[in-house]
Amino acid sequence: MRHILLWMARNGWLKEHLPRLPFARRAVRRFMPGETAEEALAAAEPFRTHGIGLLFTRLGENLSDLSQAQAIADHYHGLIDEIASRGLDGEISVKLTQLGLDLDPDATLAHGAALSEHAARSGKTFWIDMEGSAYTEATVAMYERLKAEHANVGLCLQAYLRRTPADLHRLLPLHPAIRLVKGAYDEHAAVAFRKRSEVDGAYQSLAVLMLPQAAAGELRLGLGTHDLALVDRIAEYATTAGFPKTCFEVQMLYGIRARDQVRLATSGYRVRDLISYGEAWYAWYLRRLAERPANVAFALRQLFG
Amino acid sequence: MRHILLWMARNGWLKEHLPRLPFARRAVRRFMPGETAEEALAAAEPFRTHGIGLLFTRLGENLSDLSQAQAIADHYHGLIDEIASRGLDGEISVKLTQLGLDLDPDATLAHGAALSEHAARSGKTFWIDMEGSAYTEATVAMYERLKAEHANVGLCLQAYLRRTPADLHRLLPLHPAIRLVKGAYDEHAAVAFRKRSEVDGAYQSLAVLMLPQAAAGELRLGLGTHDLALVDRIAEYATTAGFPKTCFEVQMLYGIRARDQVRLATSGYRVRDLISYGEAWYAWYLRRLAERPANVAFALRQLFG
Repeated sequence: MRHILLWMARNGWLKEHLPRLPFARRAVRRFMPGETAEEALAAAEPFRTHGIGLLFTRLGENLSDLSQAQAIADHYHGLIDEIASRGLDGEISVKLTQLGLDLDPDATLAHGAALSEHAARSGKTFWIDMEGSAYTEATVAMYERLKAEHANVGLCLQAYLRRTPADLHRLLPLHPAIRLVKGAYDEHAAVAFRKRSEVDGAYQSLAVLMLPQAAAGELRLGLGTHDLALVDRIAEYATTAGFPKTCFEVQMLYGIRARDQVRLATSGYRVRDLISYGEAWYAWYLRRLAERPANVAFALRQLFG
Repeated sequence: MRHILLWMARNGWLKEHLPRLPFARRAVRRFMPGETAEEALAAAEPFRTHGIGLLFTRLGENLSDLSQAQAIADHYHGLIDEIASRGLDGEISVKLTQLGLDLDPDATLAHGAALSEHAARSGKTFWIDMEGSAYTEATVAMYERLKAEHANVGLCLQAYLRRTPADLHRLLPLHPAIRLVKGAYDEHAAVAFRKRSEVDGAYQSLAVLMLPQAAAGELRLGLGTHDLALVDRIAEYATTAGFPKTCFEVQMLYGIRARDQVRLATSGYRVRDLISYGEAWYAWYLRRLAERPANVAFALRQLFG
């Protein structure tokens, strides 16, 4: 099932035709409040009441020329201002390919630096998202360069990648902000763990290893997962070891485990809800379905009933 | 099955009668070369060729008076001398109840201090074994006191105990020697994880957390498990993070995964084989059977064929 969905995510014909079907648009609403920044910002409002932070990302396609990267950077600059003027506890997360990584790494670095600086003015972290394994090295290297100049930059690391322990230990001395996810791309077994027990074991180990530094305030740790059992284990480790509840943040996607997000926030954990928006939601949506069988069941219910 | 075996381990009548049956004595030979120190030392010889170290422990019953603790301490002093005179890479591991923990903690501390000092003269670590959860706090506290005076003391920690992260973080500043095991006693769910995935996740996390300090030479880490998949994951983490193969030691029981012990040693890992001996093997043997279904199958083959 997972591999079919990930194949569908890559298929050009389906990508062109599926999103036009009305049921597909209805189903995707579960995870995405709308295609515009305005819709995303409006959807963020109810989270204030619960003290839940937000992370905004605009879904995008590969770029064909650098002017598109400029337009995307401009869009995020506008979003940073909008977040600040609304007084939202909101941050942004951007894929480096959207800022031109394939076309001109120096231009990408310049965009990243400008966005970091802009986010810093309202005391926010600028998050770099992680993509398929072809981009991991370039993304980590770019993070190192940005982090050397800007304290408020965060990076997503994927626990399923076999290389991640190396990336983590390379970044630890920089006092990084790490958003740890399991990983959702269809990677080869030489590159990524494929058995759930292996991915979960790697995730728990990487998170636990970061806890002492996070508790000491030398690292910001976001647990980007919907696996509540895993979050519970890491939380139990932290509590038992005497680290404060606030030493990590749970980061979940908009529309997934909404009640658990509130429950965690109410019981003293830091929670951040990730709101994605934009027109290019097709491949992103299929990766979300591939992550959890429950999501597929929901999509099918939208289709047939 | 596991619970039946652990119940059998505690049952007084069975404890009296089962060990007398000839098939039981035959079956236990798989894990125990004999009942005397001489037999244990003789069994150690073949391990030299492969560069595999040894850890000796004498199986014991609860003590009824302190003179027995003195006799046991004397026995281990003799063993330390014997190991040194044979030039074996051998260390000893002792349960604190065998040194009188139930009867007189100060006497136990004195025995532990004397054995640590004696082991230090031949450059060896004196290992403290871990027992059921009723003894955990007293054992960790005794370890702290011994470790403050003697650099060469090691402690066994059990990953299945919910309290272990607290114990570990309490000991990390002391630059401890830790032998990490999953845990083999029949503990309550309030005290210990009972699901295999939870125990494995805890084990991997605790081990990975110790790796950086172990690689820096500030901690000695023994992985006391026969779970090769788990050892592989921890080894892969270490390699990927750039830590040397020698930053941990794999510790397995005599007679279990003998070929894997040799294979690991040959491929550059540090390996230590644990040889238990003595007359009081009944409860110990049943805990070994409870750990692995494969061990039970072996015991049944001894019985019926």
